Amino acid sequence: MTKWVYTFGVGETEGAAAMRDLLGGKGANLAEMSNLGLPVPPGFTLTTEVCTSYYKNNREYPDELEGQVTAALKQIEEVTEKLFGDRYNPLLVSVRSGARASMPGMMDTVLNLGLNDETVLGLATLAEDERFAYDSYRRFIQMYSDVVLGVDHHSFEEILEDAKTEKGVTLDTELEAEDWKALVGEYLALTKRETGKDFPQDPHDQLWGAIGAVFGSWMNQRAITYRRLHDIPAEWGTAVNVQAMVFGNMGESSATGVAFTRDPSTGERAYYGEFLINAQGEDVVAGIRTPQYLTQIARKAAGALEPSMEEAMPAAYKELAQIFDRLEAHYRDMQDVEFTVERGKLYMLQTRTGKRTTKSALKIAVDMAGEGLITEAEAIGRVEPQGLDQLLHPTLDAKAPREVIGKGLPASPGAASGEVVFNADEAEARGKAGHKVILVRIETSPEDIHGMHAAAGILTSRGGMTSHAAVVARGMGRACVAGAGNVRIDYGAGAFTARGETIKAGDTITIDGSSGEIMKGAVATVQPELTGDFSKLMKWADGARRLGVRANAETPEDARTAREFGAEGIGLCRTEHMFFDGARILAVREMIVAKDEDGRRKALGKLLQEQRGDFVELFHIMKGLPVTIRLLDPPLHEFLPHEEAEIAEVAAAAGISVEAINRRLADLAEANPMLGHRGCRLGITYPEIYEMQARAIFQAAAEVSQDQGETVVPEIMIPLAATKAEIDFLKARIDAVAAAVETETGGKLDYLVGTMIELPRAALRAGEIALSAEFFSFGTNDLTQTTFGISRDDAARFLWDYQEKGVLAADPFVTIDREGVGELVRIGAERGRAARARIKLGICGEHGGDPASIAFCEEAGLDYVSCSPFRVPIARLAAAQAVLNNAPERE
Amino acid sequence: MTKWVYTFGVGETEGAAAMRDLLGGKGANLAEMSNLGLPVPPGFTLTTEVCTSYYKNNREYPDELEGQVTAALKQIEEVTEKLFGDRYNPLLVSVRSGARASMPGMMDTVLNLGLNDETVLGLATLAEDERFAYDSYRRFIQMYSDVVLGVDHHSFEEILEDAKTEKGVTLDTELEAEDWKALVGEYLALTKRETGKDFPQDPHDQLWGAIGAVFGSWMNQRAITYRRLHDIPAEWGTAVNVQAMVFGNMGESSATGVAFTRDPSTGERAYYGEFLINAQGEDVVAGIRTPQYLTQIARKAAGALEPSMEEAMPAAYKELAQIFDRLEAHYRDMQDVEFTVERGKLYMLQTRTGKRTTKSALKIAVDMAGEGLITEAEAIGRVEPQGLDQLLHPTLDAKAPREVIGKGLPASPGAASGEVVFNADEAEARGKAGHKVILVRIETSPEDIHGMHAAAGILTSRGGMTSHAAVVARGMGRACVAGAGNVRIDYGAGAFTARGETIKAGDTITIDGSSGEIMKGAVATVQPELTGDFSKLMKWADGARRLGVRANAETPEDARTAREFGAEGIGLCRTEHMFFDGARILAVREMIVAKDEDGRRKALGKLLQEQRGDFVELFHIMKGLPVTIRLLDPPLHEFLPHEEAEIAEVAAAAGISVEAINRRLADLAEANPMLGHRGCRLGITYPEIYEMQARAIFQAAAEVSQDQGETVVPEIMIPLAATKAEIDFLKARIDAVAAAVETETGGKLDYLVGTMIELPRAALRAGEIALSAEFFSFGTNDLTQTTFGISRDDAARFLWDYQEKGVLAADPFVTIDREGVGELVRIGAERGRAARARIKLGICGEHGGDPASIAFCEEAGLDYVSCSPFRVPIARLAAAQAVLNNAPERE
Repeated sequence: MTKWVYTFGVGETEGAAAMRDLLGGKGANLAEMSNLGLPVPPGFTLTTEVCTSYYKNNREYPDELEGQVTAALKQIEEVTEKLFGDRYNPLLVSVRSGARASMPGMMDTVLNLGLNDETVLGLATLAEDERFAYDSYRRFIQMYSDVVLGVDHHSFEEILEDAKTEKGVTLDTELEAEDWKALVGEYLALTKRETGKDFPQDPHDQLWGAIGAVFGSWMNQRAITYRRLHDIPAEWGTAVNVQAMVFGNMGESSATGVAFTRDPSTGERAYYGEFLINAQGEDVVAGIRTPQYLTQIARKAAGALEPSMEEAMPAAYKELAQIFDRLEAHYRDMQDVEFTVERGKLYMLQTRTGKRTTKSALKIAVDMAGEGLITEAEAIGRVEPQGLDQLLHPTLDAKAPREVIGKGLPASPGAASGEVVFNADEAEARGKAGHKVILVRIETSPEDIHGMHAAAGILTSRGGMTSHAAVVARGMGRACVAGAGNVRIDYGAGAFTARGETIKAGDTITIDGSSGEIMKGAVATVQPELTGDFSKLMKWADGARRLGVRANAETPEDARTAREFGAEGIGLCRTEHMFFDGARILAVREMIVAKDEDGRRKALGKLLQEQRGDFVELFHIMKGLPVTIRLLDPPLHEFLPHEEAEIAEVAAAAGISVEAINRRLADLAEANPMLGHRGCRLGITYPEIYEMQARAIFQAAAEVSQDQGETVVPEIMIPLAATKAEIDFLKARIDAVAAAVETETGGKLDYLVGTMIELPRAALRAGEIALSAEFFSFGTNDLTQTTFGISRDDAARFLWDYQEKGVLAADPFVTIDREGVGELVRIGAERGRAARARIKLGICGEHGGDPASIAFCEEAGLDYVSCSPFRVPIARLAAAQAVLNNAPERE
Repeated sequence: MTKWVYTFGVGETEGAAAMRDLLGGKGANLAEMSNLGLPVPPGFTLTTEVCTSYYKNNREYPDELEGQVTAALKQIEEVTEKLFGDRYNPLLVSVRSGARASMPGMMDTVLNLGLNDETVLGLATLAEDERFAYDSYRRFIQMYSDVVLGVDHHSFEEILEDAKTEKGVTLDTELEAEDWKALVGEYLALTKRETGKDFPQDPHDQLWGAIGAVFGSWMNQRAITYRRLHDIPAEWGTAVNVQAMVFGNMGESSATGVAFTRDPSTGERAYYGEFLINAQGEDVVAGIRTPQYLTQIARKAAGALEPSMEEAMPAAYKELAQIFDRLEAHYRDMQDVEFTVERGKLYMLQTRTGKRTTKSALKIAVDMAGEGLITEAEAIGRVEPQGLDQLLHPTLDAKAPREVIGKGLPASPGAASGEVVFNADEAEARGKAGHKVILVRIETSPEDIHGMHAAAGILTSRGGMTSHAAVVARGMGRACVAGAGNVRIDYGAGAFTARGETIKAGDTITIDGSSGEIMKGAVATVQPELTGDFSKLMKWADGARRLGVRANAETPEDARTAREFGAEGIGLCRTEHMFFDGARILAVREMIVAKDEDGRRKALGKLLQEQRGDFVELFHIMKGLPVTIRLLDPPLHEFLPHEEAEIAEVAAAAGISVEAINRRLADLAEANPMLGHRGCRLGITYPEIYEMQARAIFQAAAEVSQDQGETVVPEIMIPLAATKAEIDFLKARIDAVAAAVETETGGKLDYLVGTMIELPRAALRAGEIALSAEFFSFGTNDLTQTTFGISRDDAARFLWDYQEKGVLAADPFVTIDREGVGELVRIGAERGRAARARIKLGICGEHGGDPASIAFCEEAGLDYVSCSPFRVPIARLAAAQAVLNNAPERE
C-alpha cells in the first residue's frame, strides 16, 4: 500500500527535511523541526504523489487516501485532546499548500478550518472569549469562500466596512462579539447568494474542499505559466499540509511573530524580528498594528517604548532564542521562522532559509565560515553573484521620496541624477563644465561614446538589454535605463514626455539602472562601500575557480578598473571604439569615402600612430596579462555622418563633394547591417584596414616589450569568420605585417592570431577553423542573434510578448540559451580542441558576466570568460560557484 | 624503382583511359586510342606523381626521371625513324600539360620543340619546303619564349607586323622563306634582349625547360585560385605529354581538323566538324582562313563551294569516319577529336567527351539509349539539369546583332524585350494595354508583384541571386537581371544610365536572364520547343528518382504551370503574396494601424473571404495533391506605404491621421528586419492574424472537399520558429479554429500543422519541435542567412570579393553549403525523425531547384524538394541523377 500521508508532531514523526520532493518545502521542514523535538503543533502532509496521482487518474484521489487522512486526523485529535467537529471541544486545523519549489501566487492558506455554527460555540467556551470565537469564524468563512468556493473577498470586506460605518467606528478592534456574530450571518448569506449553496457545515466536507482546492490550483493558468517560466515540471505536484491550529490571539499571554536568526539586512549576528501580542499571523503582515521588537537591544536602538518580547514574555523568548541557535546549528544557515505563543506556550509554525540582502549574505557567509559553521566553499555558494552589483554602484537612498515618471529596462546598474541632455557633444561639453548630466537618446551608436563617457547615466527609449547603450554603459560602469517605451523623445523640441510629464533639456532627472525607473528631479543616492568581507570572499572564490576571468575593455580607464576588480587580462578590446576619438573620426571618414586603395592607405596612415598609442597605453596598464584585440568589426556606414550639416563638414574636411558622400552613404546602406558587410568581410574587401591595425599592434608590442623588458604577447582576433579560408586569407596578411615590423625593429614578435566564434557555421566548422586559428572567443551576442534569428536591436518589441505569454522563460541575450546556442558552443569547443588540443577558448559576449551562463561555460570546459569591468567580481564569484556546483540559494 | 614515364604509340602502350589520375585526361586518352590500334603519333607521359614528387622535394625531379625520359625518347626515335636534335633527320615533339580535371588557363602547348639553327635546315630538306621549316621555327621560338622564358608574345607579334608593313603586305601567307628566316633572326635577338641569354639551341635543354615550365605553372597564382574555387587538391598534380610532331601543313596532301562524332548543337547523328588543308591546328582555331566542312551533306546544306574532306581526301575521311564509330562504341558517348593528315596519313591527336548544348545532350542521350549504346539510367545522367532552363524559356537569337550596355546577375533565365517602365502600376497599366514592358527598379518588394507579373522581364540595380526580384521572377518564369551595379536608376528623372547611355522610360531594351546582359533596343529571341525526347527523358527520370518534387506557388497561374511541369504538390504557398492584390492591401494596412485587437479583427474580417477564395481555387487546381501553406511571414512594415502621397491615401481610406501612420511606421522600423518581428513572432503577438488565415484555409478545405468528394488535406506551416513553445502556442490556436469550423460546417477536417526549419536553433532542437510539428520544411534561404550570418539582400557587395579572392567557391544562396548549412539540415532531419518516425521532410528554399543541392537532399534522406514552377523539370532530373549517383558530365 502506498503511503500518501506523513504525520509530524505526533510521537514518531514520519518525515524529514531531506524528503522535500515528497512533502514539499513547508511539510519537510515542519517534520524536521518535529524530529528536533521542537514544539510544532501536530499535523500531517498529503504528499506530492497524491497530486500526481490525482491528475493521472482523471482528478480522482487514490483509494487509500481517505483512510490515511482519517487515521492521521485521529492522531492529531489524540495529541491535542480535541475532536474534529466536536461541538464542545473542537479541533481546528489550517490547510496550506507546499510545493518542492516556492511558487508565489499559488493558493492561499485556509485557517480555522473546522468551525461551523456549532463548533464556534465550543471554541467560545474553551477560549472563554466569544468575540475571539466569532472573529475566528468570520475569518474562516471569508478565507474558505474566497479560496475554495471562489467568492470574491472584496464582497466580504464591503460588508465589514458597511457594518463599521453603521456603528460609527473605524477599527476592527472596536467591533464586539455581537457585531461579529451578526457579520457571520451576513457572510454565510453572501456565500449562499454567490454559490447557490449553503456554506458547508460539516468539517470533513470543509477539509476535503480545501484539499481539493489546493490540488486544483496546481493546474490553474497562473500556476501553469509560472511553472513554464521557471522550468518546474508539472509532474512535481504540490503537497498539502493539515495542521492543528494554535492561537496567538487568545489574550495577553498569547502572541505571534516572525523572525530571522540574523539581521537579513546587515548580516549582523543578532536575532531580528517582530511580534504582536494577542494577534494572529495575518495581523503582523497586515500592518494595522505596529509590531514590537523581539530583543531589548533592538527596541532600545530604535528608541521604541512598547516592550520587546524579551521583556514582555521572557520565558517564551528564552525558549525561542534557544530554538534559533539550534535551528542555525542544524540547518547551517540563517533561518526565517514563524512562531505563535498560545497562552504562554511557544509553537513553531515554519522555518526556512531566510532571504537577505547581498551585503547581509556576504557578512553571514564570511562570519559563519569564521564560526566554523560552514566551510569556505559553502560560504562562496551563499552569496548571489548578481547581487554584488549593488555593492559596486551607488544606489537610491531607500528613504528618499521619489516621483516615478517612467520605466525601462534595468540595463546597467547604479543610480544617477543629472541634467537632461539630448546629444553626445553637449553631454561632453556640460560634463567638462562640471555638470552631472543624463544623456537621453532614442538609441545610441558608436558616435555617442564620448558623450556616454561624460554622462552620469544614459536613458534610451529603444533597444534591449544588449543594445549598444546597455552594453557600453555596463562596460563603463554608467547607470543606464534602456528601451523605456513610454518615453517619447523629440530632439527637435529638445524635450521628452513620459506619463504626461514634459522634461526639457537642462531639467534634472534621476534614473535607477538597477530597477529601470525614471524619476523627476534629483533623488538622493547612497555610495557603496566595499568591506573586508568582500575581499575575503573574493579571495576564497579565486582559490576555488577554474575559469579565468578577463574584461572587455578598450579605454585606459576601463582597463584600470578591470585590473582593480581582479581581471586577469583583456578578453575583448573593441578597436572601433578607438576610431571615434577627436580627429580620428575625420581620418576614418576620409578612408571610407576614398576612391581607391591608395586613398584609403593615405587616410589609414593618419590613424596608425594614434592606434599605436592606444595599444602602448593598454599594454602598459595590463602589464604581464594577455590582451585580446579584435580587428575592426562594425559596418563602415556606422562611421559616416547621417545629418546634412555634418555631411557638409566631413565633405569640406576630406576635400570631396557632398554628393560623393551621399553616394557613398547610399552605396553602404544595408537592409540588415547585422548580417552585412562587417567583421572580417571588411578585412577581405579592404585588407589595408586590418594591415594598419596589425601594424599598430605589433609596433606597440615591440615598444612596450622593450620598455618593460618582458615580452608582450598580443592576441589578434578576427571577427565574424564563417570559414577557414577567411582566416587563412587574413592571417597571411597579418603574418606579413609582423615580418615587416620585425625587420624594421630588429626584434622578434610573439603573438597569436585567433577568431571569434559568433556564427553557427563557425561553431560547426570549428574543427577546420582551429587548424588556422590559435584561439577562439565565443561571441555569444552575435551567436545568439544568428542561432535564434533575432536582432538584439529589434528584439524588445516581441521578446516582451514572448515572456508575457510564457513562450520564452528568459531573455536569451541575458542568460545563454543552453539548448541551442549552448550546443553550438559545445560543438565549437569540442571540434576546436580535437583539431588543436591546447587551443585557448573564451567567451566575450554579454553572457560572460552572467552567473547562469558562467556555470554553462564551466561545464563546457572553456578556459575563461570576459565581461564588463564592473562585472568582473560577479564573474569571479560565479566561476567559483560553478566549480563547487553549489548553486546560489533559492527559496 | 618507381615508373615515372608511360609511353604510347610505340609498340606496347603502357597506359589506358582508366589511368586518368596518373596520366591526366589527355595522356590517358592518347594511351587508350593507342591501345585501340588507332594511329596516334608516338609519345610518352610524365605522370602526375612526378609533379607531386617535384613539389615535395623542393622542386627537384626524382633521380630516375632523366633516364626514363631518355629511354622513352629513344623509343619514339625508333618508331619515327628520326633522331631528336639530328641536323639531317630531326625528331620534333610537342609538350603539353594534362591534369586529371580540365583546368583552363593553365600553361599552353609548346609545338615544334627540337628546332634550332641547325635542325631547321634538316626539316627544310625533309619537307622539301624551306618556308615551312622557318615558319615552324619562328612559331616555336615565339611559343617557347612566351611559355617557358616569360617573354611577352605581343613583342613578337609587333616584329611580325613591322615586317609585313615594311614589305607592304597584310597576310602571313604573303611572306616568303627569306622573310621568315629574317624574322627568326629578329626573334632570337628579341629573346636574348629580354632574357639576357641566348635562346636555348640544345633540344634537350629545350625539352627540360618546357617540362619545368609545365610543372612550375601548377603553382602559379592563377592555377592556385582556380583549384581553390573548383575544389581541386594541389596534391593531384599535372602530367606532361611529350609527343612526336606530325604536320598538317606539309602541302596539299596534309590537313588538320577538329570534329565531333555527333552534332554538338542539335544532337543529330551526323559527323560534325571542320578541317583545313595545309594548316597547323592553331590555324583552324585562329579563324584566318575559313575551314571547310567534313562531310558532303554538311557542305551542301550550307551551300559552301570548297570541297568537304569527304570529297577532297576520301581515303583519310573514310578512315576517320571508321575511327569515329569505334570511338563512340568504345567510349559510349559523343567524342570531340583532333586529327592531322600528314602527306595523306591520318593521325589522331586527342579524343575527349564532347561538350554539347542541352538540346543536343537530350537528343544524344535518348538516341544512344535507343541505339542500345547506353542504358536509360545512363541517359538520365547525360543531361545537365541546369541546362533544361534553356529549353523552357525564350533565348536570344544567336545571330541577332546586339548592343550590350550593362551586365548584372543572371537571376532568372530567358530573354525578353520591352519598353522600360519604372514602377509596378505603370507596368500593369501598359501591360494591360498590350505593351511588352521591362520593369526597372533599384530593388523590388512585395508591393511590386502585380507589376512584375505584367512585365516580360525585370531589371534591378541591387540585390543578389536570391533577392526578392530574383526569387519572384524565377517563380513566375519571368526573365530577370538583378544587381546590375553599373545601372544607375533615377526614378525622379524617369531614366537610367549605363555605360554612358541614358535610357528613358518608354525606350526599348532587351535583357538576357541567362547571361545577365542588358541590351539597347529589341534583340530577336527564339521561342523554345519541347521535343518528345524531353518527355521521354523526364519519364525515365521520374521512374528513377526517390525524392518528391513540389513547387513553390501561390497564384493560380503558377500552380497550373507547376502541375504542367510535373510538380507533385505545392511545397510552399506564400500567403503574404495574397495580401497585396487590389483592395486587400487597404484592409491589411487598416489592420496594421488599428489601435487594438478589435480593430485588427475588424480589418482581418474583410480579408477572410478573399483568402478563402484564393485557397478554394488553389485546392481545385492542385486536386489530389498536397498543398503546404505558410502563414504570414514578412514584417508588417513591408505592407505599409513609405511615400507621402500613398501614406495620405491610406490614411484617408482607413480613416486615421497621417501622423498615426507615420508613428506606426516609426514603431515598426527595424534595424535588421530579417531578424525582426516576423514569421511566427507576428502570430504570437497578433494571434488573430494566423487565426484568420487558418479559418480561410479550413473553410476552403471544407468547401472543396465537398465539391470534389475527396478530402483536401492542407498542410499549415508555421514560419521562423526557434522553439517548441512557439509551435505549441500557435498550434493550440489553429486547432481551436479547426474545431470551430468543424462545428460550423458539420464536417470533419483533416490537416497537418508543421513548421519551417530555417533557424539554426530550430535545426538543433528539431527533436523536441517534432513532438509538436507534424512536418518540417527546411527553409534554406533563411537558414543560410543565419548560419553564415549573411543577409542575402546585402551579400552581393562582398560575396563578389570573396569569390574573386578565392575565399568562397560558390554563392551559398545558389548551392547549399553542405558543410555548414548542410550539417544543420542533417541534424534537423535526424533529430526530427528520431522523435517522430514518419515526419515528412522537405526543402523549400531556392536550393530546392539547384541540382547540386538536390543531390545533397537525396543524401540527407529528405522526402521532397520544392522549387519554382519553372525549375520543376530540373529538379525531377536532378533528383533522378542523385539516386543514380551519376553526376552530370564534366570535362
